[in-house]
Amino acid sequence: MDSSAPQQAYDRGNTIFSPDGRLYQVEYAREAVERGSPSVGVVTDDGVVLAARKRVRSPLLEADTIEKIHEVDDHLAIASAGHAADARQLVDVARRVAQHHRVRYGEPVGVESLATHLADHVQEHTQTGGSRPFGAALLVGGVDPGRPGEGVGQPRLFEVDPSGTPYGWRAVSIGNGTDGIRRFFEDRLEGDLPGETQRGIATALEALATTAESDLEPESLDVWTIDSDAATVERLSADEIAAVLAELES
Amino acid sequence: MDSSAPQQAYDRGNTIFSPDGRLYQVEYAREAVERGSPSVGVVTDDGVVLAARKRVRSPLLEADTIEKIHEVDDHLAIASAGHAADARQLVDVARRVAQHHRVRYGEPVGVESLATHLADHVQEHTQTGGSRPFGAALLVGGVDPGRPGEGVGQPRLFEVDPSGTPYGWRAVSIGNGTDGIRRFFEDRLEGDLPGETQRGIATALEALATTAESDLEPESLDVWTIDSDAATVERLSADEIAAVLAELES
Amino acid sequence: MDSSAPQQAYDRGNTIFSPDGRLYQVEYAREAVERGSPSVGVVTDDGVVLAARKRVRSPLLEADTIEKIHEVDDHLAIASAGHAADARQLVDVARRVAQHHRVRYGEPVGVESLATHLADHVQEHTQTGGSRPFGAALLVGGVDPGRPGEGVGQPRLFEVDPSGTPYGWRAVSIGNGTDGIRRFFEDRLEGDLPGETQRGIATALEALATTAESDLEPESLDVWTIDSDAATVERLSADEIAAVLAELES
Amino acid sequence: MDSSAPQQAYDRGNTIFSPDGRLYQVEYAREAVERGSPSVGVVTDDGVVLAARKRVRSPLLEADTIEKIHEVDDHLAIASAGHAADARQLVDVARRVAQHHRVRYGEPVGVESLATHLADHVQEHTQTGGSRPFGAALLVGGVDPGRPGEGVGQPRLFEVDPSGTPYGWRAVSIGNGTDGIRRFFEDRLEGDLPGETQRGIATALEALATTAESDLEPESLDVWTIDSDAATVERLSADEIAAVLAELES
Amino acid sequence: MDSSAPQQAYDRGNTIFSPDGRLYQVEYAREAVERGSPSVGVVTDDGVVLAARKRVRSPLLEADTIEKIHEVDDHLAIASAGHAADARQLVDVARRVAQHHRVRYGEPVGVESLATHLADHVQEHTQTGGSRPFGAALLVGGVDPGRPGEGVGQPRLFEVDPSGTPYGWRAVSIGNGTDGIRRFFEDRLEGDLPGETQRGIATALEALATTAESDLEPESLDVWTIDSDAATVERLSADEIAAVLAELES
Amino acid sequence: MDSSAPQQAYDRGNTIFSPDGRLYQVEYAREAVERGSPSVGVVTDDGVVLAARKRVRSPLLEADTIEKIHEVDDHLAIASAGHAADARQLVDVARRVAQHHRVRYGEPVGVESLATHLADHVQEHTQTGGSRPFGAALLVGGVDPGRPGEGVGQPRLFEVDPSGTPYGWRAVSIGNGTDGIRRFFEDRLEGDLPGETQRGIATALEALATTAESDLEPESLDVWTIDSDAATVERLSADEIAAVLAELES
Amino acid sequence: MDSSAPQQAYDRGNTIFSPDGRLYQVEYAREAVERGSPSVGVVTDDGVVLAARKRVRSPLLEADTIEKIHEVDDHLAIASAGHAADARQLVDVARRVAQHHRVRYGEPVGVESLATHLADHVQEHTQTGGSRPFGAALLVGGVDPGRPGEGVGQPRLFEVDPSGTPYGWRAVSIGNGTDGIRRFFEDRLEGDLPGETQRGIATALEALATTAESDLEPESLDVWTIDSDAATVERLSADEIAAVLAELES
Repeated sequence: MDSSAPQQAYDRGNTIFSPDGRLYQVEYAREAVERGSPSVGVVTDDGVVLAARKRVRSPLLEADTIEKIHEVDDHLAIASAGHAADARQLVDVARRVAQHHRVRYGEPVGVESLATHLADHVQEHTQTGGSRPFGAALLVGGVDPGRPGEGVGQPRLFEVDPSGTPYGWRAVSIGNGTDGIRRFFEDRLEGDLPGETQRGIATALEALATTAESDLEPESLDVWTIDSDAATVERLSADEIAAVLAELES
Repeated sequence: MDSSAPQQAYDRGNTIFSPDGRLYQVEYAREAVERGSPSVGVVTDDGVVLAARKRVRSPLLEADTIEKIHEVDDHLAIASAGHAADARQLVDVARRVAQHHRVRYGEPVGVESLATHLADHVQEHTQTGGSRPFGAALLVGGVDPGRPGEGVGQPRLFEVDPSGTPYGWRAVSIGNGTDGIRRFFEDRLEGDLPGETQRGIATALEALATTAESDLEPESLDVWTIDSDAATVERLSADEIAAVLAELES
Repeated sequence: MDSSAPQQAYDRGNTIFSPDGRLYQVEYAREAVERGSPSVGVVTDDGVVLAARKRVRSPLLEADTIEKIHEVDDHLAIASAGHAADARQLVDVARRVAQHHRVRYGEPVGVESLATHLADHVQEHTQTGGSRPFGAALLVGGVDPGRPGEGVGQPRLFEVDPSGTPYGWRAVSIGNGTDGIRRFFEDRLEGDLPGETQRGIATALEALATTAESDLEPESLDVWTIDSDAATVERLSADEIAAVLAELES
Repeated sequence: MDSSAPQQAYDRGNTIFSPDGRLYQVEYAREAVERGSPSVGVVTDDGVVLAARKRVRSPLLEADTIEKIHEVDDHLAIASAGHAADARQLVDVARRVAQHHRVRYGEPVGVESLATHLADHVQEHTQTGGSRPFGAALLVGGVDPGRPGEGVGQPRLFEVDPSGTPYGWRAVSIGNGTDGIRRFFEDRLEGDLPGETQRGIATALEALATTAESDLEPESLDVWTIDSDAATVERLSADEIAAVLAELES
Repeated sequence: MDSSAPQQAYDRGNTIFSPDGRLYQVEYAREAVERGSPSVGVVTDDGVVLAARKRVRSPLLEADTIEKIHEVDDHLAIASAGHAADARQLVDVARRVAQHHRVRYGEPVGVESLATHLADHVQEHTQTGGSRPFGAALLVGGVDPGRPGEGVGQPRLFEVDPSGTPYGWRAVSIGNGTDGIRRFFEDRLEGDLPGETQRGIATALEALATTAESDLEPESLDVWTIDSDAATVERLSADEIAAVLAELES
Repeated sequence: MDSSAPQQAYDRGNTIFSPDGRLYQVEYAREAVERGSPSVGVVTDDGVVLAARKRVRSPLLEADTIEKIHEVDDHLAIASAGHAADARQLVDVARRVAQHHRVRYGEPVGVESLATHLADHVQEHTQTGGSRPFGAALLVGGVDPGRPGEGVGQPRLFEVDPSGTPYGWRAVSIGNGTDGIRRFFEDRLEGDLPGETQRGIATALEALATTAESDLEPESLDVWTIDSDAATVERLSADEIAAVLAELES
Repeated sequence: MDSSAPQQAYDRGNTIFSPDGRLYQVEYAREAVERGSPSVGVVTDDGVVLAARKRVRSPLLEADTIEKIHEVDDHLAIASAGHAADARQLVDVARRVAQHHRVRYGEPVGVESLATHLADHVQEHTQTGGSRPFGAALLVGGVDPGRPGEGVGQPRLFEVDPSGTPYGWRAVSIGNGTDGIRRFFEDRLEGDLPGETQRGIATALEALATTAESDLEPESLDVWTIDSDAATVERLSADEIAAVLAELES
């Protein structure tokens, strides 16, 4: 992004529009997201897949502690891209909302409802002074509970961007390389879901591979699934990821 | 909008007038509305029609989750244009006001009363420091309850602009292309209502078509009606929208 | 108003005097009033007349919803000029004060008392930081209750300007063209009241006509009367306004 | 006042001294007082006289509503010069203090005590941020109650300036033309009181006449007396003022 | 004081040190003190003498109301120099502290204890934002109560400067001409006390005379004594002052 | 770090992103960490080793009082680098959290849980105005309690950086010379743990030695161990450190 | 300290790091300490000695009231250098902490504990906006109580600098000439304590003499001792100081 003179007059804080109606601090926060390694989400026939690349700076780093995907509740997880510390604050908000909902209503929070709540929180940080926007985007993936007796839940996937707008997707990417991944998804899926969870995982990893200069390594990947039937979040082990990668290469 | 030197001295915040008595931040917020895809509202003989164009960036996006028109209460909906996250905050305010009114007075809130309440909220964000104006305009459409025994309610349609002023309209547009749509409405309606709801829907879609470079697609349109008799809000399905579009083209 | 360099150093906020003891933000707020279409008030032998011109941008706009004159209490109305959203906030304050007075003292608030209260509120917005002056002027017209047994009330008319000063008038104008209207009033009335209400209405409309490039239209006019006897506020219908206009032209 | 470059660095707010130890905002507030039409106060043998000139912009303006002198309590009135809206805020403070004193101590507030209280309030607005000094000066005139059995009260006259300092005077002027009026008082009175109330009124009006380009008009004058015996505030009618003016001219 | 460019970067507020560790706003507040007419204090064998020059701008000004020396408690008075309104605020603080001490501990507050309390209050206004330092210095003179049975109290004299530091003195000056007065005191007293109260008064007036261009006038002087035996504050009448002046001239 | 013109526009506070999505104040806080002498942490087969170099400016300084490593709870210690006063504030937070956890849950706080809590606290200081980021990084080393009956705890080691992100490590360095130490650790450990505690201590001191211009002195070193079995923190004496150093040199 | 252009961008407040990770306001506060006359502390075999030079501007100044060393509790005193008013605020904090500790725990506060508490207070004034760092450094000297039955306490000496870091010392100086005094201490003591209290006093005065242009005068010196046995603070009389000085000169 070019920092030419005219824009500089209007990009120093949340509480100011530019003459052409733009909020530059929100746009700069989007740049912070673009700087982060990508996360993707894919809705499948039987759930949601979230996958993320992690920058493992050193073999001494415990890759598990680099948090790109966070379990929020039994039926709901969040993948992030951008400023990691900002994303963690939003995940904390998400956990409080989910817990509050369970305590108050005796049932899991809806996926769209949670995404909307997070988006509201993000928007407030774009309008008031004394703060800055969040430099992180989120993918909220989960399963809306099926009606009693129907059993199977409805998989949902939402993006929350730094402006505080929620969007529902069938397959989506945030962070570095998002444009390429979106084209990959559009070409590959042609508007359909990729099929069962295993196909979803493979599609997600293929999408992430488009942004990598070398082969993907299991330890620099985080892959989680949310199952529509069980409405439970599960994390793939390094071995399970390696198996998928091996299959893709074959 | 040109950003010449003199104005720059007075356009950095809410708490300052320019020498010629203008509030530049409010005018810039209007630019943010102008950047958004348009929404229109039309009062008909038997209710109100709200319609909006949506930017569906990708076939993978769930178009339903792009919120341009929001149900606020059984008898009242709001269409928006401009900064989507800002609009959602205002819709949240609207829902709280409507719910509070029902609980306190045991009856639905009046359309003008709600629009006025929102306008007050918007104005406060143009006068105090530590915030910025809302970069969104709203169309508040609804039905004022008929007197007991009379049955039919009165359809009303209000615009709330970023300065915090409410205006009542028979047909109105906000967002990109508003000038052209207004001329279309004035030419077509010549001061009258368009007739029954179906004619209103057609007129609304024709109006939106004036701003589109190609044919309108059902999935990038949101159309809602509020019926005077039933005082209920209803959303048209993609098929229903497609049917209207087909009829228009024929 | 010229924006020369020296003044620019002292015109960016409420909390600062210029070296010559001026409050530029208050003066700029007066410019905002000057930009608005005019409102006039006239005290008559039997009450007060308030009249205002409205800018009806489109035949589709419901002219009734452009609020230039507002009923505040049975015996008191307020006409405004300038920033409409700011004026509405002040009218809200006025209504709360009037209602509070009735509840607490069991009688209508005095006209001067209400104008003074509003002026105090306006002044506070010229002295403290974190806000800006109100970009609106008000005409507070009403009837002070007569003593018990005397029956007839006393008509009063006050201007509240953006500095927060109340002035009592027999005939007055705010908004665009005020200087011309004042000269008209002074020439026409020569210090007297115009007579009965009907003469007052005619005089008010003649005054507004001095600022119009073409003939006045009933739908772009708002005319209200407050009657000394009944101490009630009434709004003229479009037909009643048309009748006065016709008489004036004849 | 010249606005040379060096001073400009230190004149933008309350919370800053200039290198030579001056508070420019207070000095600019004094300029605001200088811009206002003058008020004078004179202590006489049997009370205090307060008199003020008013700018009556139009014959349609109700001159009575231009408030330059305000009754604060039975035994105490305040004349002001400068920013009228600021002065009214201070008078409101004065009234609350006087009322509170009566309720709490069962006796009228002392004149010096009230002037000191107002001066404290004014000073606070010269030291803290988020506000500006008051652009008004006050003359507090009143009668301190005589000791029980002694009957006659003591007339007192205090000036409160924008820095928040109270000064006691035998005869004093604030507002436009103050230097000339002070010389007039010094020449005329030679340190003595002018005699009885009637002489005091005449002296006050003669003093105001030194600042007028043409003859004084009764309707542009406000004259009040506080009587030591009765400890009551009274306002002269236009006829009474006219009589004094006639006598002066003869 | 020269206002060269480098210092200007660091002299705009309380919350900032200059690169060489100075607090410019405190130094500018000292300049405000230097601009004020001088006050002096002298410890004598049997008490403390406080004396001050006053600027009596006009023979019509009631010189008694120019407050340079203030009684704070039976045994304690404060003389000030600099910004009079600021000094009065500090005297108000002193009175509250003294009264609180009497109520809480049933005995008069110690002189050093009061001076220290005031100094703390002054310091706080040099460290926090949203305010400015006090532009006044104080001389706190009083008598510390003797032990029960010993009878005679201990006279004490403290200076509180705008930085908020208390200093004990045997003889001291604040305000305009302080350097000359200090030299006078050092030459005259050679480290001793001047003797009894009458000698102290004479010494104080001689000191003030060194700053005057013409002979001192009783009405432009304020002289107070605090007696060690009686622990009471007394103010000299104009006649008493005149007598001392006459003696000095003879 | 170069301070070129464009970046200067965006590096003055927490509440602002640069056009390329960076938070300069956080990056400058990282520079403050880089200026500090290094601390290292190593996970061993039977616990965690924390070691730090201290700048002992003078032989008169009590080296023990230079706090680089702090005991937080029986089972948990924190090493810091950067601004010492900032680090101590964070250690105070850590102690309160650990104590609160013991009181509330009756068990020691988890190591990752504590590191996460600290990271949240640090992040908040990067997003809100009125503060600055912490100029310190932390190494949180401790032992997560084993399951009842299992006995042995799990050693954990976390870095908390000035952005507020926690990372888990097997061996890590913060402060001056971090890049070199990381390479040393990677070469030496080849992804493994160094073995038992004694080997861990030796490895930690060897790592610190890579940043020293001369031989390490026991008194400028701080070495602590947390034992997995006992879950207790212990500090090495100077003699114990000297013994390890001697062994390394041999 | 040079005030070159680049640094100026980052030295105007607490809430900002410079690009190289420095806190300039803290460094400028250190300059304020450097401007103050020096204070020294020395730990001896049987206690702690605190000594300070005072600037006695005039023989009329009561040197005792220049507070450089303050008793905080029976067993603990604080010497300061730099901005005297700032130091007094910190001493007030120290006294409250010591008193609170006695009341709450029934025993004297530990020396290191008090120094740490003060350091925390100082640090907070370096991180938040709306204030500035303290322009003073402290030497906290005292005796930690011996275990019951052991009798003799442990002498401790801490420096608290403007960054808010506490350091323990055997001998230390703050204020003007600190570098020279440190070298003197290092040469003289060679890492040992100076012996008994009398030797400690002599060493402290010798150290202060290195910064004086002429012989030290007893009245410009403040010397206090804290005795390990009795755990009591005592101040040397001028005669006692003169005796030590005489011995040093002989």
